[in-house]
Amino acid sequence: MKHTIAILVENEFGALARIAGLFSSRGYNIEALSVAPTLDPAISRMTINTTGNERVVEQIIKQLNKLINVIKVKDITTDNPINKTLLMLKVNLNKSNQDKIIKLIKPFEAKIIDADERCSIIQAVVDEENAHTLIDNLKPYGIMEYISTGNLAIQRGKNTLRY
Amino acid sequence: MKHTIAILVENEFGALARIAGLFSSRGYNIEALSVAPTLDPAISRMTINTTGNERVVEQIIKQLNKLINVIKVKDITTDNPINKTLLMLKVNLNKSNQDKIIKLIKPFEAKIIDADERCSIIQAVVDEENAHTLIDNLKPYGIMEYISTGNLAIQRGKNTLRY
Repeated sequence: MKHTIAILVENEFGALARIAGLFSSRGYNIEALSVAPTLDPAISRMTINTTGNERVVEQIIKQLNKLINVIKVKDITTDNPINKTLLMLKVNLNKSNQDKIIKLIKPFEAKIIDADERCSIIQAVVDEENAHTLIDNLKPYGIMEYISTGNLAIQRGKNTLRY
Repeated sequence: MKHTIAILVENEFGALARIAGLFSSRGYNIEALSVAPTLDPAISRMTINTTGNERVVEQIIKQLNKLINVIKVKDITTDNPINKTLLMLKVNLNKSNQDKIIKLIKPFEAKIIDADERCSIIQAVVDEENAHTLIDNLKPYGIMEYISTGNLAIQRGKNTLRY
């Protein structure tokens, strides 16, 4: 099963290297990862997408909690969170047939953010299922470049990842 | 100066740990990082936000190119790229005063994606300048939670990070 783990971590040299090292040395897979400072620049928030059964994920969280600089760890997969991924795609569609692409991406939270005579850049904020459908729709036109943030997740309501 | 470095890397155990380790062991700062597979699942694309003068960034790129699993490295800061960050914010604003918040976030590429009687979750896709303004606008209402992907950058036109 896919899991999304949120981590609050002190913004210190080596914190990311230790966390990534923990995963690789234990044979845990990081599928995607995103980390940036919070509003408190001394603290960063990291989101890790990983795959494993409950026991493995419990182990990962236990190990993460033992690491220096790690403030808080939570598997928020089962909390019915809001899941969002930012995609940036460059597609082989030029200005003259933009109408086609606009129709194609309309059902998604997507839009063309740049275009010239040779290609268009599309920005989309999607959940995993919509990401697959959007990509399948665009593939016939030729996806020249693809950037994804991986899945970010936030708990609904008053619950937050506090420290 | 802030730099955005794009990296294509083989999706292998330890690749992220080696890259993060290179930064921390050399005293280079990773401000934000995001990595996820490309459409070829064997290859991931990483975006690193870092700060340093030209000489330091040149050094970083030279060192990254020497790492195993690294396919391609490019500092795309000076290419006039499109820069985008996905933010998810939980704000202390309930359903009854959503009108206020909608007016506040309208000038940005932002929208409310969840709300209950106590708080609202806002999603925004912004560049750095807009991120600051949006946060300043929302701060008076109380930002309870803040998740950022860091800055993603894509080159305009036909140029891509190819391997």
